[in-house]
Amino acid sequence: IKVFEHGLSVAEKGEFRHFMLKEIYEQPEVVKATLQGRISATKLLEQAFGNGASAIFDQTKQVQIIACGTSYHAGMIAKYWLEDIAGIPCAVEVASEYRYRKHVVPENTLFLTISQSGETADTLAALREVQDKVLASLTICNVPGSSLVRESDLSLMTNAGPEIGVASTKAFTTQLVALLLFTLALARRSGLSEAREAEIVGALHQLPELLLAAVKLDASIESLSRAFAEKNHTLFLGRGPLYPVAMEGALKLKEISYIHAEAYPAGELKHGPLALVDKDMPVVAVAPNNALLDKLKANLQEVKARGGELFVFAGADHIKPEEGLRVEQMPDVPEILEPIVYTVPLQLLSYHVAVLKGTDVDQPRNLAKSVTVE
Amino acid sequence: IKVFEHGLSVAEKGEFRHFMLKEIYEQPEVVKATLQGRISATKLLEQAFGNGASAIFDQTKQVQIIACGTSYHAGMIAKYWLEDIAGIPCAVEVASEYRYRKHVVPENTLFLTISQSGETADTLAALREVQDKVLASLTICNVPGSSLVRESDLSLMTNAGPEIGVASTKAFTTQLVALLLFTLALARRSGLSEAREAEIVGALHQLPELLLAAVKLDASIESLSRAFAEKNHTLFLGRGPLYPVAMEGALKLKEISYIHAEAYPAGELKHGPLALVDKDMPVVAVAPNNALLDKLKANLQEVKARGGELFVFAGADHIKPEEGLRVEQMPDVPEILEPIVYTVPLQLLSYHVAVLKGTDVDQPRNLAKSVTVE
Repeated sequence: IKVFEHGLSVAEKGEFRHFMLKEIYEQPEVVKATLQGRISATKLLEQAFGNGASAIFDQTKQVQIIACGTSYHAGMIAKYWLEDIAGIPCAVEVASEYRYRKHVVPENTLFLTISQSGETADTLAALREVQDKVLASLTICNVPGSSLVRESDLSLMTNAGPEIGVASTKAFTTQLVALLLFTLALARRSGLSEAREAEIVGALHQLPELLLAAVKLDASIESLSRAFAEKNHTLFLGRGPLYPVAMEGALKLKEISYIHAEAYPAGELKHGPLALVDKDMPVVAVAPNNALLDKLKANLQEVKARGGELFVFAGADHIKPEEGLRVEQMPDVPEILEPIVYTVPLQLLSYHVAVLKGTDVDQPRNLAKSVTVE
Repeated sequence: IKVFEHGLSVAEKGEFRHFMLKEIYEQPEVVKATLQGRISATKLLEQAFGNGASAIFDQTKQVQIIACGTSYHAGMIAKYWLEDIAGIPCAVEVASEYRYRKHVVPENTLFLTISQSGETADTLAALREVQDKVLASLTICNVPGSSLVRESDLSLMTNAGPEIGVASTKAFTTQLVALLLFTLALARRSGLSEAREAEIVGALHQLPELLLAAVKLDASIESLSRAFAEKNHTLFLGRGPLYPVAMEGALKLKEISYIHAEAYPAGELKHGPLALVDKDMPVVAVAPNNALLDKLKANLQEVKARGGELFVFAGADHIKPEEGLRVEQMPDVPEILEPIVYTVPLQLLSYHVAVLKGTDVDQPRNLAKSVTVE
C-alpha cells in the first residue's frame, strides 16, 4: 500500500506511476481541504457560499443542475440528496441537451452548474442562456477565476487542487462533498432538525478516514482487475444514489481502459440488458447495506442465474461470496456517504485494468481534459 | 417489400417470419387506429381522454412521467414535446428508481404512467404510492382493463392491438402518438395557436403514410444489417428528441441481437465515449434535417476522425455518403414527427441483425414480455 506523500508539487507524480493514481490517493486530503472552514463540529458554516447566498437560498424553490460527463454524475447524486433531505425538486440534465431545447424554468429556480475546469463550453453556454430567467446561479468548480466562477452569482470551490489525469477522480468526490454542503444549506430551510444536521456533519468529519480505508483496498482491487483486462464489456449496477456511482464507474472504465462498460439502475435489468448477460459480460454491483440491498440482491440472483460473473462491492457480511460471485468488502459507511466512498474502488478498478491493458492512463485516446469547445 | 395483410388474426404471423416483423409492418395501420376519433381535420378531440379530463388538464402545472424500458424512452421524448410545445415542466424517471426514493411531488402534478401491458410491477407500485399526492393520474396503455387502466383517473389507449414479440415496436410508436395528443391537450391551455395545432394535427394525418415509407426501407436496411452482425458493440447517437430514439434503437439491438449497444446524446461524446470509438465500434446516428443537424455533423466528424464506421439515417441530401460513412435516406418528415418515423428503421435494423445472428427474435433469452414482478 502506498501512502500519499505530502509536499509533492502538483506537477510531480512522485512515487506514483500515473497522475490518476496520485489523484485517487489524494482524495482523503483534498476532501479535508474542501470541508475546511465550511463545517463546525455539528453545523454547516453557511457563509462558505459567500455574500448574498443566504438570501438566495431563502428564496430557492427548485434546483436545476447542468453539467457534462463526470460532473453530470455528481449532479445526479445530488438530485437524490436534495429531494430526500431538503425536499426541494431538482432536475439534472447534460448541458449539450439543455442548451439546445426549449426548456421551462420554474419560478425561483437556483441554477447550479458543476465543472472541474469551469470552462466546459456547453455548461458555460447554458449558464449564459438562462442567466436572466433564474433566481440566481451557483457553480461548484475546481478552478478559481474560471469563466463559470466569474459569471455565476455564487460559487463554492472544490479545493481538489489541479487534476492532471484526464479521467476525473478527486474532482468528482470533492464535488459530491460540495453538493452535500449545498443540500444542507437548503435543507435547513425546510425543517432539517439540528440533530440530523449534526449527524450528517459528523459523518462528513469521518469522510477522510473512510476514503483512506477505501484507498487501502488498492492491492485487493488490483488482483480483482485481472478478471476484467481480457473482457470487452462490463455492466455496472446500482440502485438509488448508487446508480449514478455505477454510471461513473462505467465511464472511468470506458475512458481509460477502452472497455465498453455501461451502467443500469438495477431495477431496469429485466427490461432489456439482462439479454446481454453471459460469461463474457462481467457485472459489477455497488451494494452498500441500505434499504435497497434486498432488492439489489434479487437483481444479482437474476444475473447469476443467467451465467453472469458478479463482482460486488458490499458492506461487511451482507453478501456472501460464492462460485461466480466475488465480494470486495468495503468499510462500514454512514448511508449518506455511500456514494462518495463507493466511488473510490471503482476508480481503482478502472485504473488497474488500464495499467494491465497498457493504455495511456493519464492521456486516454481521443479525450481532452477540459472540453472547452462544443 | 412485404405489405401487411389485413385480416390476419393477431396470433398468426401470416407471411411474416416473426411476430416482431409483422408488428413493425403493422405500424402504419395501428397508428391510424390510435388517431381514429381523436383528431378532426385540424384539431385534437379532447373528449378522447374521457370524462373529467378537461378539468384536470386545466389545473395541470407539472407532469411527472413514470415508466420502464421502452415506455421510459417514449416518456423521455414526451418531455421534449411538453416543455417545448406546452411550456409545462416535465420530469421523467424509471419506476424502479422513483418508487424507492423520497421524491418531491410539486403541486398540481399530473402523474402519467406509460406501459404496454398495464401490469408493469414497478410502474403500478409507483402509481399506488403517489395516488394521494398528485392532482390526478393518467395512463397511456395498450391493454384495456389492465391494472394501470383500472387504477388511474384517466387513460388513453394506444390501440396497437396485441403485441407478441418481446421487443416492443408498435406499442412504442403508438405511445408516442398518444403522448403527442396529450401534449396538444396541455398546449392549448398555454397559448398554442389554432394554426400551430392545425399544423401538428395535419402532420399526424400524414403519419401513417410516412411510417409506410419508412417500413419500405426494409430491403435496404436488411443489406445494412450485415455490417453489424459480426460486431460486438454499437454506439447510437442523437440530439434533442432523437436522443431517446437512439436509446430505443440501442435497446432493441441489445434485446434481440445480444449486441452491446449503447446510446449517447451526441454532445456528450467528448466527455468519455469517444475513447471507445474505433473500427470495431460502428456508430449509428439519427440525423434528421433539423436545427441540431450541424451540431450533430460536427460530432460525426469526430467519430470519423477516430476511425469509427458511421451509419447515418438522414433526410434527403443533407449528409453526403463517403468512405466510412453510409447514409440511409429517410423520407422528408415534419420535425414534430421525426422521433416517431426515425424509430422504424432502427427497429428493422435490430430485427435483421438478430435474424442474421440466428437468435430467437420473438422470445429473446432472459426476457419476458411483461415484467409483472419486480
